[in-house]
Amino acid sequence: MTTTRAVDFRTLLSTRAQIGQTARGTIASTTRTVLTPLYEFGGGRPDPGSFPYDGLVDATARMMKEEGADALTYGDALGYAGLRDLVCHKYELFEGLKVERDNILISNGSSHALSLAISAFVDTGDPMICESPTFSGTLSTIRRHGPEVIGVPVDREGIDTNALRERLEALWRAGRRCKLIYTIVNFQNPSGPTMTMRRRHELLALAREYETMILEDDAYGELRFEGEQHPSLYALDDSGSVIRSGTLSKILGAGVRLGWLCAPKDLVPVMNSFNFGGGVNPFMSRVATYYMRDHMPSHVALLVDVYRNKRDAMRRGLLETLEGTDADVNKPEGGFFLWIKLPTGTDREKLATLAAEARVQYVPGGSFYPNGGGERYIRLAYSYESVEKCYEGARLLGNAIRGAMS
Amino acid sequence: MTTTRAVDFRTLLSTRAQIGQTARGTIASTTRTVLTPLYEFGGGRPDPGSFPYDGLVDATARMMKEEGADALTYGDALGYAGLRDLVCHKYELFEGLKVERDNILISNGSSHALSLAISAFVDTGDPMICESPTFSGTLSTIRRHGPEVIGVPVDREGIDTNALRERLEALWRAGRRCKLIYTIVNFQNPSGPTMTMRRRHELLALAREYETMILEDDAYGELRFEGEQHPSLYALDDSGSVIRSGTLSKILGAGVRLGWLCAPKDLVPVMNSFNFGGGVNPFMSRVATYYMRDHMPSHVALLVDVYRNKRDAMRRGLLETLEGTDADVNKPEGGFFLWIKLPTGTDREKLATLAAEARVQYVPGGSFYPNGGGERYIRLAYSYESVEKCYEGARLLGNAIRGAMS
Repeated sequence: MTTTRAVDFRTLLSTRAQIGQTARGTIASTTRTVLTPLYEFGGGRPDPGSFPYDGLVDATARMMKEEGADALTYGDALGYAGLRDLVCHKYELFEGLKVERDNILISNGSSHALSLAISAFVDTGDPMICESPTFSGTLSTIRRHGPEVIGVPVDREGIDTNALRERLEALWRAGRRCKLIYTIVNFQNPSGPTMTMRRRHELLALAREYETMILEDDAYGELRFEGEQHPSLYALDDSGSVIRSGTLSKILGAGVRLGWLCAPKDLVPVMNSFNFGGGVNPFMSRVATYYMRDHMPSHVALLVDVYRNKRDAMRRGLLETLEGTDADVNKPEGGFFLWIKLPTGTDREKLATLAAEARVQYVPGGSFYPNGGGERYIRLAYSYESVEKCYEGARLLGNAIRGAMS
Repeated sequence: MTTTRAVDFRTLLSTRAQIGQTARGTIASTTRTVLTPLYEFGGGRPDPGSFPYDGLVDATARMMKEEGADALTYGDALGYAGLRDLVCHKYELFEGLKVERDNILISNGSSHALSLAISAFVDTGDPMICESPTFSGTLSTIRRHGPEVIGVPVDREGIDTNALRERLEALWRAGRRCKLIYTIVNFQNPSGPTMTMRRRHELLALAREYETMILEDDAYGELRFEGEQHPSLYALDDSGSVIRSGTLSKILGAGVRLGWLCAPKDLVPVMNSFNFGGGVNPFMSRVATYYMRDHMPSHVALLVDVYRNKRDAMRRGLLETLEGTDADVNKPEGGFFLWIKLPTGTDREKLATLAAEARVQYVPGGSFYPNGGGERYIRLAYSYESVEKCYEGARLLGNAIRGAMS
């Protein structure tokens, strides 16, 4: 259709749409795509070899027989009860945490869950804190809401609570309240640390002291390869200040688009008021629930093995090729990502070119920093490619890094 | 978990969350639910007897074999290409309208589609126009965005374009621009008319003259029982001012949560910037596409027969029992609903009580009016119950109405 434009939509856009137009920054735009990558280490895509293909076909057939009509009409506002119960069961199974159905709100994946929580608290211009670095996808979600985003450094113990106190105090003295502190507690994305118990307690105390809410993202918690599991901030909290998000994306498949929020019961309907109507994915929720309620522990155990092997293969490839440099390759206790501090003097432009020629994809560190920085870092996802390709691609990238050192 | 609340989340809520707390108004809250209704004439739920249960199980199996890995990982930002193509095919098949994949943005059902469009244009306090009456679900969606909602009457030809001109002119003289005009063009929900060609042209001319956008909702267009089909506003528009929404909810099943926007290509990414990440329902989109691409015309033809019979049965029951009163029962040319003007002197409270005793559900007219009014009307959905129950329930309700006349 050819249009003679008489109405220029650009003159009618909302404030948030205008912010959105300037705040774009996706993985696609920050990686070279001249050649199709052969080693897709960019986004955190789950392992395709582990998807339960037959299991989901079977679950669809069983579900359709048992409750097909309910799956095909509008669903409950807070989500399919069976899935909300499954989330409660998951928390008890993996963490011994007891929550109830009314603490759980189902969403279209984790980013939608985070968006519901942010919408409930953040107006354009409000201050909100996140870790620096933090997950680039959530940074996009946050920015869409138009807050002032304040980054607080992360070190090996998790969020730097001294720096956090300074930021909160400065806001408080300026008569402003931080609305939310967004934190990724396990295998922090991208930089890897699991927050220590001391830091967890300090973070909770600061939220109480400065009267702010915590948004605890734990997309990868079950995929722990080693190291001690700590109680979640939600479990440790006794002041109703923690909202926690979770997802089936990493333990079943991202294509099901099912996530959730776990929150104090009286906050759940407030966040749900930002949900669009019709109930979240009644059909898909049932298929996922029918599969997972029979297979969750065994499927997660399988995935832990799969991803541990991939992490180790990718690290081996990097360590072999970067030996003798001052590069730092982290060793996360779980999750999907490695975080690499490039050797001194690495030419980032040259690295981008050499990596593209080797057809290895990565995400430059700068994508993860809310207020700039991170040039010295890159993130690699070992989740998607095979063990062999994780090793090969890591060696190719290690050599590209060497070639980019001046 | 018992919580010693130290952080009161209510003091931290966003403006829109506070609006949401006061603007709730769902069907559930406006119908009596003392006794479980036996005749569910409330919400527009699709006919459960027509769901293609086996067809969807089969489609799941075929899809999983052909492209299971893609179905289970993150999807394309604008939606599964196969589904976007299916929407193009649907428009051509039913309307002879040619659009391209890049005009289509997939959403989680129609209400999500509308929300994306509203988010792109409406800031809190901005004026936006809708029909009066209009769909209550969309009224909730609209109100969540916090605009000033201005209702314009609907008559038998659709939106009253004289009244619309007055509102637009008043806003213009006050130095304010209407951001969006929301309209339901076919079998208007709830009041039933299909907008005439004259009104369609007048509405488009007004949008151009007052430089505003039109949001054209057409959730039921294919389910036309009789009468002439007119080209959509989108098809008639030559100024890039129309965004159109559609859904699979009524022609496949609401539980799949798949809808879309059809819009000028350069506007699609702007609206998509309000989408959360991960792609909309990659798995579900594929299942629905695999089924619909083989069965769309035959399945829609079946549904047209099903719903026409239900409409006729419900009308018959009402007309038989309300004969001799001045009640008005409309005859929509398609869709899911009847709109009834109650007889003079009907006691609404008494009707609510008698209908609840007869276990017949309906929605009071007031739910559909953005600025008050509608007390004289009720809406009935004939979509969900069987032909027999549509007739029986309509007779019971007709008698309840008679009993409530003073």
